[in-house]
Amino acid sequence: MVILGIDPGIAIVGYGIVEYKNSKFKVIDYGQITTDSKMDTLTRLELVYKGIDILLKTYNIDEVGIEELFFNKNVKTAITVAQARGVIMLACSHNNKKVYEYTPLQVKQGVAGYGRAEKLQVQQMVKSFLNLKAIPKPDDVADALAVAICHAHSNKLEKTLKNIGRYYV
Amino acid sequence: MVILGIDPGIAIVGYGIVEYKNSKFKVIDYGQITTDSKMDTLTRLELVYKGIDILLKTYNIDEVGIEELFFNKNVKTAITVAQARGVIMLACSHNNKKVYEYTPLQVKQGVAGYGRAEKLQVQQMVKSFLNLKAIPKPDDVADALAVAICHAHSNKLEKTLKNIGRYYV
Repeated sequence: MVILGIDPGIAIVGYGIVEYKNSKFKVIDYGQITTDSKMDTLTRLELVYKGIDILLKTYNIDEVGIEELFFNKNVKTAITVAQARGVIMLACSHNNKKVYEYTPLQVKQGVAGYGRAEKLQVQQMVKSFLNLKAIPKPDDVADALAVAICHAHSNKLEKTLKNIGRYYV
Repeated sequence: MVILGIDPGIAIVGYGIVEYKNSKFKVIDYGQITTDSKMDTLTRLELVYKGIDILLKTYNIDEVGIEELFFNKNVKTAITVAQARGVIMLACSHNNKKVYEYTPLQVKQGVAGYGRAEKLQVQQMVKSFLNLKAIPKPDDVADALAVAICHAHSNKLEKTLKNIGRYYV
């Protein structure tokens, strides 16, 4: 299964594309879609939409994982980023992709095994799972890859539980 | 000039379409796009996008006015509504429409003449400008019509200032 993991944003959208097969990961691509703060909102949203659209049309992606937004301070920033997250989800829908949402806590749990893991710890797990030479930069890209790994793991868990259900219930 | 005014939301998107000609308004259409809270986010965003897309393809709209979000309490609600606002703006962009953003304060100023006007006062001005028999319900629809009126007025002001500039500077 090929998974696109997304860390939503308006200045930087991190993305990571990984293949997950027989409990092993293979990195396909990762990077960032960036927009300039000097651009007007409409242009930025259009660029974010196009960036995701191109990724979905270029790679044979099966499923998409996207991080949920978590803000407790700056509502203005939350609104700007959420507008971008909306168009990202729409781009997935327009490409007939299923989108799975994960909270930052779930991502940490899904990658490092527990929700209180430090950021660096999660990033090191990303590097290790994907056999990378270094932690991808900026953080948004590492985060996106973490979301992809989290989705692979939660998907596997779901299937295991279904199998248990099939045999024992 | 035909203006589409939008009051963004995820459960209810208010819209109002008015024609503004020789300082007079004519109502073309108004109403709401609604989505059910039981639906998943992706479906709701898709419906909001489609609703706006249909309006823009049905009516010969010149320009779009949209209210800016203003939240000071519930960040979670702000994020949900902002995602919808993002796809609304994208739908406008995909239909090659210029989008003008107005704060709630600017809308009040643009309709009632001053920013501290009460909600009911603004709604009564909407009813009066548009020659309606009653204040349109729900509030989201009246708000959308207010945005359209605000855009017409600010547009007129801009042109007047330009003309002054042309002749006197």
